[in-house]
Amino acid sequence: MTEQAKPSLEVCLSPALLHLYDVKNYIVVIIDVLRATSTICTALHNGATKVIPVSSVAECVSIGKQLGAITAGERDGMIAEGLLNGNSPFEYSREFIQDKTLVLTTTNGTKLLHMAKDAIQIVTGSFPNISAVCDYLVAQKLPVILGCAAWKDRANLEDTLFAGAVVSRIKEHFSVNCDSAIMAESVFNTSKDDIFGFMTQASHFKRLANYGLEKDIRYCLSPDGANVLPIFRNGELVIAG
Amino acid sequence: MTEQAKPSLEVCLSPALLHLYDVKNYIVVIIDVLRATSTICTALHNGATKVIPVSSVAECVSIGKQLGAITAGERDGMIAEGLLNGNSPFEYSREFIQDKTLVLTTTNGTKLLHMAKDAIQIVTGSFPNISAVCDYLVAQKLPVILGCAAWKDRANLEDTLFAGAVVSRIKEHFSVNCDSAIMAESVFNTSKDDIFGFMTQASHFKRLANYGLEKDIRYCLSPDGANVLPIFRNGELVIAG
Repeated sequence: MTEQAKPSLEVCLSPALLHLYDVKNYIVVIIDVLRATSTICTALHNGATKVIPVSSVAECVSIGKQLGAITAGERDGMIAEGLLNGNSPFEYSREFIQDKTLVLTTTNGTKLLHMAKDAIQIVTGSFPNISAVCDYLVAQKLPVILGCAAWKDRANLEDTLFAGAVVSRIKEHFSVNCDSAIMAESVFNTSKDDIFGFMTQASHFKRLANYGLEKDIRYCLSPDGANVLPIFRNGELVIAG
Repeated sequence: MTEQAKPSLEVCLSPALLHLYDVKNYIVVIIDVLRATSTICTALHNGATKVIPVSSVAECVSIGKQLGAITAGERDGMIAEGLLNGNSPFEYSREFIQDKTLVLTTTNGTKLLHMAKDAIQIVTGSFPNISAVCDYLVAQKLPVILGCAAWKDRANLEDTLFAGAVVSRIKEHFSVNCDSAIMAESVFNTSKDDIFGFMTQASHFKRLANYGLEKDIRYCLSPDGANVLPIFRNGELVIAG
């Protein structure tokens, strides 16, 4: 394929920049590495029927009751009042989640997902499903935005690293004319031999490490622990296919 | 100084993210490497009395007439209609600019400068004055935002590289708890042995190279060619001191 015929691959570093991108002509990958999109692929990989992402705790409680579903979400590092589970991927073992629906409320990731609702397709990505994401994007042959959920609209290291890892893997199939993509790939290349070590500098690492969540962080930064592709259809995330 | 006592050093990758930063408690460095802030320090270094940054071509014409000043600015790579000069630092030799006032209209840089008007202090930075910027910031012992002018609100490589170069030079005097700063430094560290080569990937490089401006780009990426500190006072940029 000539360079011009290749679809575009772009990176959006923050939801506050998404309006600069023409999402309706793109597949959007929602990236919230610590920990929403890591937990979503883990729950689906372990047999959850679907994951319903919602913005508020109240909505989570209400939909959970209506569907008899598992409700989950944290605020300030604690399971939110009225919900039963937290954001850790380790809470969603096969024994616990198989054949169940998970209603999950997160702040940054859910916000971005709803902002991207006009996209051709929305999928979620994190290191535990990086190969599934990359295989899917290459196969579609459509323009892609790698959308970082960030932290309260500030660009963060972990989502940028994942975006950079994807750029690094699939760029020869795409036209990359986006400085944020070049930057993300550069940050990833610098750190790829020790992503965990690099991440110890990150603001969110410090926040989570204070809660004793280093094991979560290691899992969320490791490739292919839950290698399925969550795709967003009719308000629900299900395994693509 | 203990880590906690050090002032904060943060990087803002786009004007569209500046609202996330509490500018009134910070020194803001306006960064528009290609080419506004490179040209500003060059003009001042070569003896310009002051540089007045304005948003619109009409304002540039009107203030220029009022002050009998040199008017300059480009739109889409051409000298804007009604103005006499362009954005290239090479237009502002000592012979041409000494003891004159330059009224300069640029889009990205001027916009950010006006958005940061409540800051403790506003200075401008680019590679040609990087040492002056770093010496000043270290001496002030105040919190700093390195503000990238970006390109139509999209993060760009050249401004991020400069922010990263500053972080790399002065970080031991500051507390760096900002993922964008860590990312910028990482991108700079990857490319510092061949910044020009790295920049050939950038979207703005391609735009300017099409206009035959590689010489400009090399100058704008080289340290200390015009090592003075432009500081913003009463709507004008003058040499600090």
